[in-house]
Amino acid sequence: MVQYAEPIDRLIQSFSRLPGIGEKSATRLALFILNSKSGYVEELVDSLDTLKDKVKLCGTCMAFSATDPCPTCADPKRNNAIICVVSDFKDMMALDAAGGFSGLYHILHGNLAPLKGVGPDEIRIKELTDRVESNDITEVILATGFDAEGEATALYLARILKPFGVTLTRLASGVPVGSYVEYMDGVTLGRALAGRRSV
Amino acid sequence: MVQYAEPIDRLIQSFSRLPGIGEKSATRLALFILNSKSGYVEELVDSLDTLKDKVKLCGTCMAFSATDPCPTCADPKRNNAIICVVSDFKDMMALDAAGGFSGLYHILHGNLAPLKGVGPDEIRIKELTDRVESNDITEVILATGFDAEGEATALYLARILKPFGVTLTRLASGVPVGSYVEYMDGVTLGRALAGRRSV
Repeated sequence: MVQYAEPIDRLIQSFSRLPGIGEKSATRLALFILNSKSGYVEELVDSLDTLKDKVKLCGTCMAFSATDPCPTCADPKRNNAIICVVSDFKDMMALDAAGGFSGLYHILHGNLAPLKGVGPDEIRIKELTDRVESNDITEVILATGFDAEGEATALYLARILKPFGVTLTRLASGVPVGSYVEYMDGVTLGRALAGRRSV
Repeated sequence: MVQYAEPIDRLIQSFSRLPGIGEKSATRLALFILNSKSGYVEELVDSLDTLKDKVKLCGTCMAFSATDPCPTCADPKRNNAIICVVSDFKDMMALDAAGGFSGLYHILHGNLAPLKGVGPDEIRIKELTDRVESNDITEVILATGFDAEGEATALYLARILKPFGVTLTRLASGVPVGSYVEYMDGVTLGRALAGRRSV
């Protein structure tokens, strides 16, 4: 059987490691690149090369940014007394795109996961406590996920942030907008009931 | 609203141009790369860089190959009197993976498409006629697709290859294995009837 030349196969393997890209998609991408007009590969390579060179973590909130502090932390219109703590940079982008929050963020870059060897020192918790300690912070919103690891991380953060005397809040948990009650799991419905609001 | 830093946005745009990758997937890939352990980006960049350097067209069959002639054309066990003409490198790989053919291939790198400005000089037809002219070829299998452009290309090739006195054949057209007759279009069924075989 005809085999792909080694350099093609190597690119297929590299692409296969990207999330959501299986071997079939990776092959399609590699052949697209082989067929692409000159200029595209150079542009892609340059984008990849400059990415890790130019994008660093903001020294304040740990967001990926080309500047330090990042545009969010440097924005004088944002309320710097409230910090919204998220597990991942994507969570920050999703929350900010939703609007409704004009404070600052803090990105942990992960959740506590003792079974996977991720303890408090492996994620950006020290940077958060330092921030809370040395600034006039009034509220910390714990916006980690509602999965087991996200909940455990929020619980841990609540415990270690309590001594600083800041208001600690958690995102509301309940039935997502657009969802049907009948299809919701019992735990979610229990929380939605416990957190019911007067209308 | 928080924006992605320019270098991140640039990589998202580069990824968006890949087939099957929309802006959302491209964002996911770019953030995966930002979060990736050191070594992965370097490996991906190196795979991309060496691809176009090392992979060229085989001077005989026009397949993408790291050697010239390619391993298929250089294989003494293959029947070099039969050429199977395909539109695309992917078609060659698919036919060869199916087994059942031990001759050589010729990749056109496209189909004739006058409306898109693709004439006979834009695809590898000259290389095919040269090959048929200067070698002892007994049969040319026209294995372009059964869409309008593939059919037109096969028809054109049949016309210009006729003077060389080689046997010209076309892949059989009919109901795919695993498909139901009731769901087939009339044109396919007409061809399947016309090409019926005794059992």
